[in-house]
Amino acid sequence: MLLIDAVRRNAAFRADEIATIDGEEQHTWAQFAQRVARAADGLRQMGVAPGDRVGILAWNSARYLEAQFAIWWMGGVLVPMNIRWSVEENLYCIRDAGITALVFDTGFAEAARAIAAQAEGSLRHIILDAATDEAATALEDLIAQGTAIDAHDTSHDNLAGIYYTGGTTGFPKGVMLSFLALWTAAIGIVLANRMAPGGRMLHATPMFHLADGGMSHGAMIQGATHVFVPRFDPADVIAMIDRHQVTDVLLVPTMIGMLQTSDAYAPEKLRSLRCLSFGASPIPAPILARLQADLPHVNLLHVYGQTEMGPTISYLEPHHQVPGGPKALSVGKPFACAEAKVVDADGVEVAPGVPGEIMARGPSAMMGYWNKPEDTAKTIIDGWVKTGDVAYKDADGFLFICDRVKDMIITGGENVFCAEVENAVAAHPAVAQVAVIGVPDPDFGERVHAVIVPKPGQTLTADDLKAHCKTLIANYKCPRSIELRDALPVSAAGKILKRTLREPHWTGHARAVN
Amino acid sequence: MLLIDAVRRNAAFRADEIATIDGEEQHTWAQFAQRVARAADGLRQMGVAPGDRVGILAWNSARYLEAQFAIWWMGGVLVPMNIRWSVEENLYCIRDAGITALVFDTGFAEAARAIAAQAEGSLRHIILDAATDEAATALEDLIAQGTAIDAHDTSHDNLAGIYYTGGTTGFPKGVMLSFLALWTAAIGIVLANRMAPGGRMLHATPMFHLADGGMSHGAMIQGATHVFVPRFDPADVIAMIDRHQVTDVLLVPTMIGMLQTSDAYAPEKLRSLRCLSFGASPIPAPILARLQADLPHVNLLHVYGQTEMGPTISYLEPHHQVPGGPKALSVGKPFACAEAKVVDADGVEVAPGVPGEIMARGPSAMMGYWNKPEDTAKTIIDGWVKTGDVAYKDADGFLFICDRVKDMIITGGENVFCAEVENAVAAHPAVAQVAVIGVPDPDFGERVHAVIVPKPGQTLTADDLKAHCKTLIANYKCPRSIELRDALPVSAAGKILKRTLREPHWTGHARAVN
Repeated sequence: MLLIDAVRRNAAFRADEIATIDGEEQHTWAQFAQRVARAADGLRQMGVAPGDRVGILAWNSARYLEAQFAIWWMGGVLVPMNIRWSVEENLYCIRDAGITALVFDTGFAEAARAIAAQAEGSLRHIILDAATDEAATALEDLIAQGTAIDAHDTSHDNLAGIYYTGGTTGFPKGVMLSFLALWTAAIGIVLANRMAPGGRMLHATPMFHLADGGMSHGAMIQGATHVFVPRFDPADVIAMIDRHQVTDVLLVPTMIGMLQTSDAYAPEKLRSLRCLSFGASPIPAPILARLQADLPHVNLLHVYGQTEMGPTISYLEPHHQVPGGPKALSVGKPFACAEAKVVDADGVEVAPGVPGEIMARGPSAMMGYWNKPEDTAKTIIDGWVKTGDVAYKDADGFLFICDRVKDMIITGGENVFCAEVENAVAAHPAVAQVAVIGVPDPDFGERVHAVIVPKPGQTLTADDLKAHCKTLIANYKCPRSIELRDALPVSAAGKILKRTLREPHWTGHARAVN
Repeated sequence: MLLIDAVRRNAAFRADEIATIDGEEQHTWAQFAQRVARAADGLRQMGVAPGDRVGILAWNSARYLEAQFAIWWMGGVLVPMNIRWSVEENLYCIRDAGITALVFDTGFAEAARAIAAQAEGSLRHIILDAATDEAATALEDLIAQGTAIDAHDTSHDNLAGIYYTGGTTGFPKGVMLSFLALWTAAIGIVLANRMAPGGRMLHATPMFHLADGGMSHGAMIQGATHVFVPRFDPADVIAMIDRHQVTDVLLVPTMIGMLQTSDAYAPEKLRSLRCLSFGASPIPAPILARLQADLPHVNLLHVYGQTEMGPTISYLEPHHQVPGGPKALSVGKPFACAEAKVVDADGVEVAPGVPGEIMARGPSAMMGYWNKPEDTAKTIIDGWVKTGDVAYKDADGFLFICDRVKDMIITGGENVFCAEVENAVAAHPAVAQVAVIGVPDPDFGERVHAVIVPKPGQTLTADDLKAHCKTLIANYKCPRSIELRDALPVSAAGKILKRTLREPHWTGHARAVN
């Protein structure tokens, strides 16, 4: 089972080293393995059977990690649930995956009650961080009453988890990943960030997301210590890194910006960091420049992936993180567990410099979408996963992301990549945040449209912006229309929800790709 | 196929970096992949089919590596053949594995002819390093005439190779390893020695052996450059490390000793080394001390494994390599791809400090012995591989090897571990080399017997030796009889062949374990 093996190996060979640090509570690897093996027995006693899907809906905690491994230990299938979902979305996931037990914490007690009221059949409830009440069994009681059972004997090719993809492009789909996929992805991450035994990883992004998951599994393989914050809070993250001498952390660029502007920020508090990974969106140059100035000893790793690849596709090594350098905007080269190619609409590899869709493959790739054979067949072509990302390879083989296939704008027959336009718009002094989308246009099919959050006290017009953009990009790429907003809608993973922005414009129109 | 994926990834993303350096010949990753894909086509054209077993009998070379990957690329099963085998042993292997094609080099041309004369059926011959002759096709011709085919589509669970175990304990057995086993073992090695992209590995030990194979596959995954010497020669090895700035090398302790006493030795010629791995036997303290004095910047990695585990079991990290230190004689803790436990005769785990047999498991474990279901059933117990090695775990979980189960001496009901006795004997000033074995004894069942190579011009008696040993070990462990020899018989992997030493003593006697 590979990741379970790692727990067992740590318990046998690092018995007294610290496995988890959560607030004032710490457990050694021997304790962690004991708690997992007892909780696994507790789940069995509750009637959860091998192969059953078990959901977790909770903030980050050591008990989240224990529950996750207890589910695997007893042969269950993990379903990490998105902490931003509405009750309806939670119910969709529970019905779609056929979840028979739900693990939650007090932060989601209300949601769990609403789910219980509406879910069909008997859904078992386990609460992570409170005493037993009439509606749920406490994880601590499962651990106290369970006996340490042997891990369920399963193959590395078996289903380990169903990871629902974020809501940027429609209804969530359940990505099925095997134990081998999770293990090989973790290996790819360990090799890329050179995570070492004796390290300490901070869980700062939501644990339901595989960005955290991949690094977490890597820490498990290397026997590194897991440190937790319940959710991202700049002051908390800085304090935890400082207090527990954290070596490895993954953040999205927005979070890094929030750290830098926090009152609690001081580079010497981050002295223990060895590797800072970031991804999900390009890092703004000023944030990167400050990182490099303040933390010259830290390896900065730009990672690119998606859940369907477990989630590892490629990464840019620290020495290429040179602001303004030729590779600064690249997502680098494939992880050791992945291959990637750039293809045209017919699936044929294109020449360096020519944009096309990235296809990826490797042992970390998904088995398919849960209960969606048609979507699977459309996504896995001859063993390669269609990523939906447009990119090109440069002459040195570095990948540069242009856009999401679904976000790319086709205007008057020309392809426009939103990211390029967004970079030009973002350079305008009045712009705080921007998302560029295609909207219907009677003349051009689609029109380049910019949704802008202006800086406080600033404003701007479409003409201002167009004049600015024409100095940076070709005329046909410049926004023809703009709208100003106070904020942009974002997913739990921090991605801007372009579909939500596009929706009102497209009512009554058909978009080629949606 | 995992290792094939690594070749493809290197060709796509490190196209112009150097893959192989062999004498004056260098190839880039793009060239290496092309040569492999064309040679694969050539093998197909010769009638080699997917699933066919293909043997390689050759000294180390870049073409050995190309042939190895060409076999995998076209779907064949690799059978690396032991360069020390007699023609009879080669024939045994060819018949046992059902080999249909034999790859060899001019160093083994005579052996290949003898094999051809005696082998049944049609055995195709491919020569690595010469032009085509009537008896064999040249690899260069296969490459020149082949077209680059796509790699055969196979599963990671399929058989990749049959690796015959050395001859220390009877007839060679074919260890079946899957692509996943080879890949996970390579990952374990990469994580242990922290092999980095941009590194350069020297193939200094025979390539047929998985000690070299494991590191070689690791270098493949990390896109490191492969440098070759045809066979171990101290001056050659030193020159190649110096000339090509080699970073990673694996040697057996005897070889390290030969480097140190070579006229060509100079620490500054080994300045590029980053990691020196050694294993197969304990490293003598003076050799280790000199390594540490001369090469303080080099990570010294003591590795322990066996072919059945692909071959990774455990390793001792550099900072524990302290001569006389509490862990100096340990083989450390399991690789990231392995678990290990110490059990008694009933398979129950024993307490720290108590010797028992090491059992190991993990994704790098063998599928079983080729054509030997009974041996497989005796060796893989509930998913754990019986290693045949006696060891204990200390209180910190470090493994210490005591002996081979088969070499352990039972004398008057007491267990005696040869390694302990050998250490005591080796401390005698007149002793150059020693092997301790059990020989039949009418009173004690077995008697502790020492086979000794004295230092030049020195001699010693059984009484001398016993008096010396009694100052170091318990009386019942001291050798009761000795014999003096000019040299000890060793296997191709550098292991002393105790079975050969025991044989004349046991003619007409039955030994409990043989």
